[in-house]
Amino acid sequence: MAVLERGVTFVLGGARSGKSSFAEGLIESSGKEAIYLATGRAWDDEMSARIDHHKARRGVLWTTVEEPLDLVSALEVHAAVGTAVLVDCLTLWVTNLMMAERDVMAETARFAAALPHLKGAVVCVSNEVGLGIVPENRMARDFRDHAGRLHQAVAGAAATVYFVAAGLPLKMKG
Amino acid sequence: MAVLERGVTFVLGGARSGKSSFAEGLIESSGKEAIYLATGRAWDDEMSARIDHHKARRGVLWTTVEEPLDLVSALEVHAAVGTAVLVDCLTLWVTNLMMAERDVMAETARFAAALPHLKGAVVCVSNEVGLGIVPENRMARDFRDHAGRLHQAVAGAAATVYFVAAGLPLKMKG
Amino acid sequence: MAVLERGVTFVLGGARSGKSSFAEGLIESSGKEAIYLATGRAWDDEMSARIDHHKARRGVLWTTVEEPLDLVSALEVHAAVGTAVLVDCLTLWVTNLMMAERDVMAETARFAAALPHLKGAVVCVSNEVGLGIVPENRMARDFRDHAGRLHQAVAGAAATVYFVAAGLPLKMKG
Repeated sequence: MAVLERGVTFVLGGARSGKSSFAEGLIESSGKEAIYLATGRAWDDEMSARIDHHKARRGVLWTTVEEPLDLVSALEVHAAVGTAVLVDCLTLWVTNLMMAERDVMAETARFAAALPHLKGAVVCVSNEVGLGIVPENRMARDFRDHAGRLHQAVAGAAATVYFVAAGLPLKMKG
Repeated sequence: MAVLERGVTFVLGGARSGKSSFAEGLIESSGKEAIYLATGRAWDDEMSARIDHHKARRGVLWTTVEEPLDLVSALEVHAAVGTAVLVDCLTLWVTNLMMAERDVMAETARFAAALPHLKGAVVCVSNEVGLGIVPENRMARDFRDHAGRLHQAVAGAAATVYFVAAGLPLKMKG
Repeated sequence: MAVLERGVTFVLGGARSGKSSFAEGLIESSGKEAIYLATGRAWDDEMSARIDHHKARRGVLWTTVEEPLDLVSALEVHAAVGTAVLVDCLTLWVTNLMMAERDVMAETARFAAALPHLKGAVVCVSNEVGLGIVPENRMARDFRDHAGRLHQAVAGAAATVYFVAAGLPLKMKG
């Protein structure tokens, strides 16, 4: 049974791989005060249904914070001693940064640099998106590049890294 | 060398990853009566060529059964004591269920629930499809969600799970 | 810390997974004469930027050879005793073969057959592209099939195989 380690844990997996459930289980079994830092906004019904599904699954012991853009500030506030923050998910954050025309390279680099200095336990969840055919449109390719670079930086800063497929975790680091 | 374990084995991998060959090898080395339960119908020349390719590779000791929709019934008939059934593949079955406008959530849940009660050895092969860019069309996203949920349920019910890449198996469970 | 093994090493990973950096690190830590065998041509600005990025990262101790099509001949010339050749990457080579209307099945089979007979160390890098949704256009499906078959053949011929995700290597063989 996987347990929550000190510092930053990075959980990478595909769509519907069970990565969020796995990350939630890590935090729930830690006994720490659990904070769900959601990067998702309810853009449309489909996204809204996903957020509701996530909320229903998490139960009542979690505090939910929504922050689509300024993840570093949100983490500096919420990742206090004794808390465990679930950041779900990084790829959606990258999308939000692109939509808001932020400097994605700078913001993601700042995020990765801030991770080792946080006081509480942090579990970052993200979607691996680079294992299919090269997308035909340029924005999707840029997104894929940003996500991949961010994943490398977060994995480098994390103490523990899991790859999740079909609900099963594979420890890649730690 | 991987060997066929008791109960259900789940083999997950990408397109042309060698997952079917690996699964066939598991069954052939077991010495059991081998049954190929194909979910594929020859919709077009391309699919037909794939099925022929699979048939040629399997050789003469296999019995082939085609069942595009009612996998549970087919398994209850064929997964008898002393047999080893290769179900190839689950993602195609999900496609068939969607095409036939079946209740995919209910049918896939019923399938996963039936797996632990089968009498013979069963090897389920499926395509991981959730590691690329989010598809632009809704049906492809639904398909990806159905497949991912099914993979989690089958992995949960299986005694042994392999992820296959470039023909090489990585044991995720068992 | 991973080290360069004798014979052929195969490094498979997604887009922006850090696979090329990992492969370069293997070669640089080996102390051998390092040769970068690039299959990429600067088709457009985007590709050109990627090649420049790769060149900047590699530093001055590498010799760069560009060969978009005849990889076997190039390897027979450059993979001499005492050298370590980085072939980056195989999926781009498959694209080049398809564009040039070569017999991809024959050329890739010849490549895999030649690998065990090379005199120097060789590290082949390639993109896993088979873990997303089935592409809608036929050429992309053909490409995916060619790449997957080639990956199986190269993994079979290699002494060592790594799967790289988020910059972290997972040893699959060796």
